[in-house]
Amino acid sequence: MAETHYDLVIIGGGPAGLTAGLYAARSRLNVVLMEKIVPGGQVLVTDWIENYPGFSGISGPDLIDKMVEQTKQFNLPIESNEVLSMDLSGAIKTIKLYDRQITAKAVIIATGASPRTPGIGEDRYVGRGLSYCATCDGPFFKEKVVVTVGGGDTAVQESIYLTRFAKKVYLVHRRNALRAAKILQERAFENPKIEMVWDSVISGIDGEAGVEGVRVKNVKTGDERQIPCEGCFIWIGILPNIGFAGAALQLDEQGFIVTDEHMRTSIPGVFAAGDIRNTPLRQISTAVGDGAVAAMAAEHYIENLKS
Amino acid sequence: MAETHYDLVIIGGGPAGLTAGLYAARSRLNVVLMEKIVPGGQVLVTDWIENYPGFSGISGPDLIDKMVEQTKQFNLPIESNEVLSMDLSGAIKTIKLYDRQITAKAVIIATGASPRTPGIGEDRYVGRGLSYCATCDGPFFKEKVVVTVGGGDTAVQESIYLTRFAKKVYLVHRRNALRAAKILQERAFENPKIEMVWDSVISGIDGEAGVEGVRVKNVKTGDERQIPCEGCFIWIGILPNIGFAGAALQLDEQGFIVTDEHMRTSIPGVFAAGDIRNTPLRQISTAVGDGAVAAMAAEHYIENLKS
Repeated sequence: MAETHYDLVIIGGGPAGLTAGLYAARSRLNVVLMEKIVPGGQVLVTDWIENYPGFSGISGPDLIDKMVEQTKQFNLPIESNEVLSMDLSGAIKTIKLYDRQITAKAVIIATGASPRTPGIGEDRYVGRGLSYCATCDGPFFKEKVVVTVGGGDTAVQESIYLTRFAKKVYLVHRRNALRAAKILQERAFENPKIEMVWDSVISGIDGEAGVEGVRVKNVKTGDERQIPCEGCFIWIGILPNIGFAGAALQLDEQGFIVTDEHMRTSIPGVFAAGDIRNTPLRQISTAVGDGAVAAMAAEHYIENLKS
Repeated sequence: MAETHYDLVIIGGGPAGLTAGLYAARSRLNVVLMEKIVPGGQVLVTDWIENYPGFSGISGPDLIDKMVEQTKQFNLPIESNEVLSMDLSGAIKTIKLYDRQITAKAVIIATGASPRTPGIGEDRYVGRGLSYCATCDGPFFKEKVVVTVGGGDTAVQESIYLTRFAKKVYLVHRRNALRAAKILQERAFENPKIEMVWDSVISGIDGEAGVEGVRVKNVKTGDERQIPCEGCFIWIGILPNIGFAGAALQLDEQGFIVTDEHMRTSIPGVFAAGDIRNTPLRQISTAVGDGAVAAMAAEHYIENLKS
């Protein structure tokens, strides 16, 4: 029978959760990490990583394997289970899992975030020309043609960023004006590598082994055409994976958990780390930093409960 | 002839500076990293690291080698040079080096911090039983005897932390009362594994291959004795490596650079990352997160200068 009371429960097995688990287990806390599917989070669908310090190049699954193996040195229990609901209000936090109920003195939420997807069969192209992160994948598209999708600050900023690498960027937006800040719009319009594709949505992706073209449909005329390209970046929103806990915690406008620099949320004893929090940057390198800080802050919190 | 004007100058080649350099070079900024001695910072004197995510165990020099090699993929110039002074006030920052003067639109300061040392010939024991970081090295002392030195919050907190691993902790303090918060004092006094050594300083370390004993001198009686032990942790302060730049920037009480969550300092265009800033935790994992955030923030800052 698995335990039912813990010092610390970590929810989510991406880099933030695994790092929090590494630190907590190494500090000999009575800790468990709950992961709904398999450890890895967004990293698991990342084909190739070259900007996590220490690895000149590594696949997402390989990096996660190494992180998981490392936590085993310190006997971090990683359990496949789903958090159905939580009561975080009291000094003892109650967590309802798929098969039982557990309690904890402290909780670290590291459930990550997911890009909003257009739902046009794009899944098979992730890591094969389709990306949701220019900082991560832009440099893979040197002298290539890419199609980008969106009209907000992120879409426009990242499209400009991509012109450092790509020879041509088609920015597809479903209206005839951008939502992004004026200054970003001006820069996009002045950039000779960016061509706007107004009043349009992407209706499909073509290619066998990877992206070879993006189909674009004009929402006013109904006309559809294919833009031949090697890459497609989509920024139509990013969604926090927060269903079960959101209601009780202070969130920002986009629904991400608000924390201070110690990763403390608005509820004592509840911490958040990685993509799920209102962080200025969503990278593996920032997630591991968050995870370490959250674990140490949770430790100090638990230590203070004793007195 | 080396260049004299850059988009971005990064000062310091530890994990924070190297990560900032990785991100900036990968984004094709005109960037240079200035390192006074050789890249690595504090990590270089770290014998064995087991809590940087992705590496179950790696020596400090090996990890730094990997990080440096990774920046070379993106042609980050790393220059051995010393910053003598800086003028950060204007839109163009001026940096006086040992052999020339350069200018930059933005500067990231990642010069790190150094533990205050007692100056009793302890250098040769670093990584051989002597440590300045319990979070880093505590788990290496399972069922061992350790001597700790200091009387402030850090010394007392970390001594308590060490009792999770060590079988006995002698806490040496030069007065007959601790400076640490009352609650920490109470916990230390209640802890059966901690024995206070009052009115004493460490006067020497003994051992051939590593720490075998710590010599302790009573400052009132002048008596000296040896405590046999396998480890020695010293917390008599941590000093920011900030001589050349401190005057102009907002610092905290201990002299560390104050930043916001984007690593922005009190001067526009000047960023700080890693141990040099007022961070809640000084670890490799937090330094790399800081470095990535600082590089992206510097990029956005430079991008905005264009309009």
